[in-house]
Amino acid sequence: MAGQEKRSFKLMNEDELSLALIDAQYALRESRGTPQAKSLVILVSGIELAGKGEAVKQLREWVDPRYLQVKADPPHLLTPKLAFWQPYSRFIPAEGQIVVLFGNWYSDLLATAMHVSEPLDQGMYDSYIENMRAFEQDLQNNHVEVVKVWFDLPWKNLQKRLDNIDASELHWHRLHGLDWRNKKQYETLQKLRQRFTDDWLIIDGEDEKIRDQQFAQSILEAMQRLPVHQDNGVTNWKQAAVPQLLLEPQNEELAENEYKSHLKELSRQVATALRHDERQVVIVFEGMDAAGKGGAIKRIVKKLDPREYTIYSIAAPEKYELRRPYLWRFWNKLDEHEDIMIFDRSWYGRVLVERIEGFAKPAEWQRAYDEINRFEKDLTDSQTLVIKFWLAISKDEQAKRFQARADTPHKRFKITDEDWRNREKWDEYLKAAADMFERTSPAWAPWQVIATNNKEAARIQVLEGILKKLQAD
Amino acid sequence: MAGQEKRSFKLMNEDELSLALIDAQYALRESRGTPQAKSLVILVSGIELAGKGEAVKQLREWVDPRYLQVKADPPHLLTPKLAFWQPYSRFIPAEGQIVVLFGNWYSDLLATAMHVSEPLDQGMYDSYIENMRAFEQDLQNNHVEVVKVWFDLPWKNLQKRLDNIDASELHWHRLHGLDWRNKKQYETLQKLRQRFTDDWLIIDGEDEKIRDQQFAQSILEAMQRLPVHQDNGVTNWKQAAVPQLLLEPQNEELAENEYKSHLKELSRQVATALRHDERQVVIVFEGMDAAGKGGAIKRIVKKLDPREYTIYSIAAPEKYELRRPYLWRFWNKLDEHEDIMIFDRSWYGRVLVERIEGFAKPAEWQRAYDEINRFEKDLTDSQTLVIKFWLAISKDEQAKRFQARADTPHKRFKITDEDWRNREKWDEYLKAAADMFERTSPAWAPWQVIATNNKEAARIQVLEGILKKLQAD
Repeated sequence: MAGQEKRSFKLMNEDELSLALIDAQYALRESRGTPQAKSLVILVSGIELAGKGEAVKQLREWVDPRYLQVKADPPHLLTPKLAFWQPYSRFIPAEGQIVVLFGNWYSDLLATAMHVSEPLDQGMYDSYIENMRAFEQDLQNNHVEVVKVWFDLPWKNLQKRLDNIDASELHWHRLHGLDWRNKKQYETLQKLRQRFTDDWLIIDGEDEKIRDQQFAQSILEAMQRLPVHQDNGVTNWKQAAVPQLLLEPQNEELAENEYKSHLKELSRQVATALRHDERQVVIVFEGMDAAGKGGAIKRIVKKLDPREYTIYSIAAPEKYELRRPYLWRFWNKLDEHEDIMIFDRSWYGRVLVERIEGFAKPAEWQRAYDEINRFEKDLTDSQTLVIKFWLAISKDEQAKRFQARADTPHKRFKITDEDWRNREKWDEYLKAAADMFERTSPAWAPWQVIATNNKEAARIQVLEGILKKLQAD
Repeated sequence: MAGQEKRSFKLMNEDELSLALIDAQYALRESRGTPQAKSLVILVSGIELAGKGEAVKQLREWVDPRYLQVKADPPHLLTPKLAFWQPYSRFIPAEGQIVVLFGNWYSDLLATAMHVSEPLDQGMYDSYIENMRAFEQDLQNNHVEVVKVWFDLPWKNLQKRLDNIDASELHWHRLHGLDWRNKKQYETLQKLRQRFTDDWLIIDGEDEKIRDQQFAQSILEAMQRLPVHQDNGVTNWKQAAVPQLLLEPQNEELAENEYKSHLKELSRQVATALRHDERQVVIVFEGMDAAGKGGAIKRIVKKLDPREYTIYSIAAPEKYELRRPYLWRFWNKLDEHEDIMIFDRSWYGRVLVERIEGFAKPAEWQRAYDEINRFEKDLTDSQTLVIKFWLAISKDEQAKRFQARADTPHKRFKITDEDWRNREKWDEYLKAAADMFERTSPAWAPWQVIATNNKEAARIQVLEGILKKLQAD
């Protein structure tokens, strides 16, 4: 493949290349907020001393450096505690931005696989590759174009270069890489990387000029490429049936004293179970306005100290958040690594309010189910327990609670014109919820639908639901 | 003091309190972008079981929880590697936002001082307090109001409460706190905290109702308080004399071959020295447009791998950055803990372009010198070496370089109308630079002014300057 690239490749005049790169950068920036908007992530990996560092430095000189971020780290070894994208998700660029990830999930995978004491088996290795590709596809779909470049160098040339670098540099490479004098390691690495580089640009590191230009030109092309944003979804969308529980969310009434003692005991049990669980626990609440999400959360944390949990009450995204994949603001929150995180509304906004209000286009919300499933699967695989509740209220009961809120001055903020408008779209929300249950209830993170016309019974059920999940897994 | 507070304190009707809090939150949000804008940081500390957690939970129920962030962590012990504000600086709120730091720099200080194996001596302890107060004053001046609340509980009541909590809760408190059964520890803690709580609101944790209301009312008052933004600076500002080197930035020419070999050797030495330095190294470049900052940086990193350093080319702040203290975007960059960070323009924009263009008001840029000194001192104290260069070019030489850029298509982006306008303000920039040298050249981070009419000689001097600083300290 490297040979092929070289044959069809033409050197440009350097000044012209630089000008074209800068023009493309500016055009990319100008695209912000338009339907053509996109950002660029460039994954750089390769054989040590193949010149990837030099190529990145040269690129930085050809472009306007204010608008090129280079994020370059020695490898993070992959661990079962962190999804592979977690060290990088914060750096996923906003529309109009370019980020070079020199050191990325593939370098991490290679470093982990080459790490002698705990090698990855082949099945694990391939499943990582599969997940990485799926993640990149999700980025692409969310307007983050991914370019992958491998800098290669034949064994002999690598040895020659090693002969010529100075002691300090050699020391650094030894600390942060493999033993590049070991031919068997070199060959193992080449075999491993060939399992994922078939859709990469392979640059031969031998000729410096060609190397730098191939790299820069590939980025130029990526910047100039018009993004293909698929906005139209399937027309024959198969609507799931609305569950009976959503149409008639009845639950039995509890005797006052029974409720109180039961609640107290359950709050205590839930606190103890959460406190002792080794995993990160993420609890998600969705449901119609006034369904009692806040009240349920209050009971979960009743016997916990605020230092033990974090509650995120999700409002509409800020402008700078809108310029990134919609999951980005949640990646960032998960990045805090709190033990217990409770979401009062969540990433499911994509397939609920954004779907219904048209903030997400049909193709966008239609593919979001799979994106969310992958996101939650990655969390689950990295020792996070995801527990999801839909609180189901009837339309009549909601009307009563709205009226009560409207009649109570300090609760009036909870009820806005928008809430009344949402009410008019009641049936649409039920349908969206039904689709969501059907498409995002995998074994590892099923939805629990709780009827909330009777608040007290609902709170008990939520606590029991959490306890059961904590004890089951 | 707690007694005093109690005497003058009146319970409000809870619904009215809630309504007032919500109204104040909304007013605070509405203030964004206006001259009245401010944000609120609430520091919460105190005796364990005094009810600070309960008070925070109650507050969350009275307000609109979407607009109250609670950041609650077990203590971070203070280390010589991190300034005390570094674990928190990311969470400093934007205009209109409120953040409760339940667990903050004072809790960290107390935990560190009580940590038996390496106790802090009294001088160290008091100097931390002094720095913390200075930091808070800087926050206040930059429109972040700081409210400090200590929840207190007498020894006997603490013991009574310890008798009544369940095993799981007790276990958690043991893990994350002190031995609250130890009276001597309790007394030591009380003595220690009295050294900083004289400007705190002290809340007695005995009566739950009063406790929660005192806390909430103090926040209500803080939200309602009109911010005092001092925008007018001193009128008799004492302008520093412009150094001769800025007026005539001549340097000797170097013979071509001498330059090349010297540069090569120096790049190597600098790379080795940077690589082996245990400290974090921050290198700052300021200077007129076209003074050669990019070229100098290129030579510093010549023999380094991109994984060893990060270059930040600082453009104008984004809108969401403008809504926070101007140092915030630099706090965040330092938060990445890269070993080598190079800034092509920096926080000194505050006293250069922002001063001259009027983006910062006189009082703002006038106090920025001290703020920056404190910021760099905190970095220096946490094992960071700060090296600062001003590249000095003559007005004629700049004109030549501007013309050359204008004549070179791919360099045209480097020269904009704004650059020509800045040129018209040449003398103002010289004066601002002179003030900056005079006021921000402490022993630990002095400015090095390098004449750059001859680029080659300047590059050599920059490399020598870095080497000298690395070897000296």
